[in-house]
Amino acid sequence: MRVVIPLFPSFTALDAVGPYEVLRLVPGAEVLFVATEKGEVRADSGALAITADAALDEVDACDVLVVPGGEGSLAPPPELVPWLAKVHATTRWTASVCTGSLLLGAAGILDGLDATTHWGAAQRLEAYGARFLPERVVFQDAHRVVTAAGVSSGIDMALALAARLADQVTAEGVQLAIEYDPRPPFHAGAPSQASQPVRARAVEILREAARG
Amino acid sequence: MRVVIPLFPSFTALDAVGPYEVLRLVPGAEVLFVATEKGEVRADSGALAITADAALDEVDACDVLVVPGGEGSLAPPPELVPWLAKVHATTRWTASVCTGSLLLGAAGILDGLDATTHWGAAQRLEAYGARFLPERVVFQDAHRVVTAAGVSSGIDMALALAARLADQVTAEGVQLAIEYDPRPPFHAGAPSQASQPVRARAVEILREAARG
Repeated sequence: MRVVIPLFPSFTALDAVGPYEVLRLVPGAEVLFVATEKGEVRADSGALAITADAALDEVDACDVLVVPGGEGSLAPPPELVPWLAKVHATTRWTASVCTGSLLLGAAGILDGLDATTHWGAAQRLEAYGARFLPERVVFQDAHRVVTAAGVSSGIDMALALAARLADQVTAEGVQLAIEYDPRPPFHAGAPSQASQPVRARAVEILREAARG
Repeated sequence: MRVVIPLFPSFTALDAVGPYEVLRLVPGAEVLFVATEKGEVRADSGALAITADAALDEVDACDVLVVPGGEGSLAPPPELVPWLAKVHATTRWTASVCTGSLLLGAAGILDGLDATTHWGAAQRLEAYGARFLPERVVFQDAHRVVTAAGVSSGIDMALALAARLADQVTAEGVQLAIEYDPRPPFHAGAPSQASQPVRARAVEILREAARG
């Protein structure tokens, strides 16, 4: 089972690495990172780069496509969106994390579907004809599509996907292998939970990070 | 504020990328990935590589040291452990995720301290003179040391650390920025929660992953 994760300049690393760490442990899965060209792809912070082991034009099909988000999703390499549309036609599952949903949207994959994305991108998602749901993970089983909310949500998404790809005992085994028993020290992970000062601080932090 | 994350062959990617994604958003933080030599370092899966942007011998000091784990922590490059001991002497905080704790142990940093690690490594941790606590995150404030449990726990650890490095509103702002409102689809993330078949499956999964 081939899992392909496309990277692009200014992707968000945890969007990609959360699902990678879950799916790479599903027996029989092989993960492949791809990009316009083989080689190092810098994340949004500038401080991290992941290697793409194949170029987009070397991959025509896969079982599971996982599309991360990040600032770079707003101005992707021109070949990425048509490649997503082409490869999506071959997948068992096409998944996005965070603003990776905007890339699926641009590829026409979310038109008329329920979907989610980072809380800051809901309007942009709806511009692609999707209906935004403020949920952690939104499965559209009939369309082989699953979208996840911001950044860290890819772990939850990938565990639910692992149960569909393998079985529940395997998915729970992966959860235990990565000791995913989250205990956030604060209760501020969604806009509905965070105080107004925290919401304002999050917007500042994201703005400052985007300025680099 | 300089955050340094050492990589080594066969590290576990999420151990490093969870804390990276939190700490890089703390205003004023600059993250640097380092390794024996500059360049690509392969994770335990073989399918992912992160670039080290500096060599160990280029870095003598930092504010925050975050040590990931993974299979490679059992046979680290010989220069890594003395480097950890040296740099630890300069930090405000030294942190580990998963079996990164074994590297801190080898560097003599955990002797006599309470600490945690991946559930599968408790005995090995205690061989370094630490007292294993089956907790998600163990702070030893007086010693500037914090250890986290398996793989995904680095996110919880880094958020708690962010509050100490900055302030709680900032830490909560980072939590909201990465939308860390975890909703695991199953209740199997710790040995005490998982059923016997799931515990057996996790051991199989980890064994198969280690065989590559």
